[in-house]
Amino acid sequence: MRRKPVIAIVGTSREVEAAVSNARALGRSIAEQGWVLITGGRNAGVMRAAAEGAKSAKDSLTIGILPDSETEVADAVDVAIVSGIGEARNNIIVLSADAVVACGVDDPGTASEVALALKSGKHVILLQASKTAVSFFGPMNERLVYQARSPQEAVDVLSKLVK
Amino acid sequence: MRRKPVIAIVGTSREVEAAVSNARALGRSIAEQGWVLITGGRNAGVMRAAAEGAKSAKDSLTIGILPDSETEVADAVDVAIVSGIGEARNNIIVLSADAVVACGVDDPGTASEVALALKSGKHVILLQASKTAVSFFGPMNERLVYQARSPQEAVDVLSKLVK
Amino acid sequence: MRRKPVIAIVGTSREVEAAVSNARALGRSIAEQGWVLITGGRNAGVMRAAAEGAKSAKDSLTIGILPDSETEVADAVDVAIVSGIGEARNNIIVLSADAVVACGVDDPGTASEVALALKSGKHVILLQASKTAVSFFGPMNERLVYQARSPQEAVDVLSKLVK
Amino acid sequence: MRRKPVIAIVGTSREVEAAVSNARALGRSIAEQGWVLITGGRNAGVMRAAAEGAKSAKDSLTIGILPDSETEVADAVDVAIVSGIGEARNNIIVLSADAVVACGVDDPGTASEVALALKSGKHVILLQASKTAVSFFGPMNERLVYQARSPQEAVDVLSKLVK
Repeated sequence: MRRKPVIAIVGTSREVEAAVSNARALGRSIAEQGWVLITGGRNAGVMRAAAEGAKSAKDSLTIGILPDSETEVADAVDVAIVSGIGEARNNIIVLSADAVVACGVDDPGTASEVALALKSGKHVILLQASKTAVSFFGPMNERLVYQARSPQEAVDVLSKLVK
Repeated sequence: MRRKPVIAIVGTSREVEAAVSNARALGRSIAEQGWVLITGGRNAGVMRAAAEGAKSAKDSLTIGILPDSETEVADAVDVAIVSGIGEARNNIIVLSADAVVACGVDDPGTASEVALALKSGKHVILLQASKTAVSFFGPMNERLVYQARSPQEAVDVLSKLVK
Repeated sequence: MRRKPVIAIVGTSREVEAAVSNARALGRSIAEQGWVLITGGRNAGVMRAAAEGAKSAKDSLTIGILPDSETEVADAVDVAIVSGIGEARNNIIVLSADAVVACGVDDPGTASEVALALKSGKHVILLQASKTAVSFFGPMNERLVYQARSPQEAVDVLSKLVK
Repeated sequence: MRRKPVIAIVGTSREVEAAVSNARALGRSIAEQGWVLITGGRNAGVMRAAAEGAKSAKDSLTIGILPDSETEVADAVDVAIVSGIGEARNNIIVLSADAVVACGVDDPGTASEVALALKSGKHVILLQASKTAVSFFGPMNERLVYQARSPQEAVDVLSKLVK
């Protein structure tokens, strides 16, 4: 028996159109591959869109790692894990994933997730990230950091990583 | 849309026969009810037996909340959440569950789980617990603490709680 | 150079007279020994009394490990560590201490602290604990669990432990 | 009674000369101001240098927030808080500080600390940070992010912040 690959999508909780629409497409593709989706679980921005995308596929499993029990959970989250550790739950998201995709990384929460992922040796795909973000994170670990220009390109990288 | 109830089974990591066999029967019943099973995820004692019991049912979802990335995970865990917070992950297990069943509670880890569950206002079912354990935890919160003499009795209580 | 011993006093946040007065006396003695006092930091019950006791000695250092940034901190806490991890901070208190003294242990929070202390191999002194509490925790680890009938007796045990 | 200001110095664990020497000077100045120093506690790089700098002042208090009990602690740490939560302890460091100074920020651990600080609304001073780091973090929150060209300039900013 072998556990299904687990992919984390992280990104802003604000309704940034490109990030949100990328997250939705990517969430769906991840589910179509038979992978488990993990997010920060909140009913906002990239987290909500990724979970909704996954649930639009035929079979899917979406796990949300919440900061605390007060958090409003996205409807599309199948299982809500209430960490109770606040923003430190970002570390649980990345530790639990085989690889992490960041949809936009220019807000503090997502930046912390990318940084923590690299700190624990996880592969990170920066999807349509700003030039500054790529310049900042890329040199930290050239082996772990990938760029993708589209959700499809992100899935292609993921496919190689989880094999 | 409504999330499935989530039930935590906690208990010793040692191979205590009664606790382990109760956990296995209870894990199976939980899955048969269509509930999600959450455990500490380790490949030992009550944690392993509960997950194996659940996977012996036709449909089931088993989540393991691990202390860290070094932990050996039970095969029957579908999704392993790597908390990275050590024994403090006991609090995540109880916060994420709608109710907690303890199969034996006379070891420090399980005792901490029951105590943390009561601290956060969760219902706890003590399954075939020692008289001392019942005398210790019962008076802490008479509304939250239940006793059960068999896995079936535990499921009966759970059925009322998750409604 | 050698760090000063660190002693944790844990106990109820309610104003239980015996527990609070024991905590105050013990806090003072701990400071008089030149040890650092660590508590849960809140402005209530045993936590407040222990810190106040310590500050009534000539030299003292009191550290409070808070659940989150909303917590009201006892005035007598010199340094407030904001864990942000809620009740899971109980594990930080015991991990950071050379030994733990429980002033009353019949509430869920304190019970979790004693259990977590034993789980991580820390010595625990139960000060004027109920017979039930002693019967529950004592057999878990006879090497780690001590009883004391008075703050002075607790200090005597601590003196041997921190040597 | 009013608690002393608490300042966190964060930065690389590698022996990067400029960062380490800045941390040492800054640690000393912080202690001379009568502030408490908080670091990640490890016996390496910026963490060790900051604590040593503080202890070279006449009075000082240095607190180290460790990832776990296996960590080698810097001798110059007065009180070691064993978080047991691994890299998630970075969030405790920033939550516990009135302000955070980063000595170099081009490694994943420090980047996560700066990001988590901004996420929780803490002031961050980037001391001799790379242009890329400033371009990345600056726009996230122009009110919270400061630059300093020298330890003295950092202390000047801190003096205004903690008033």
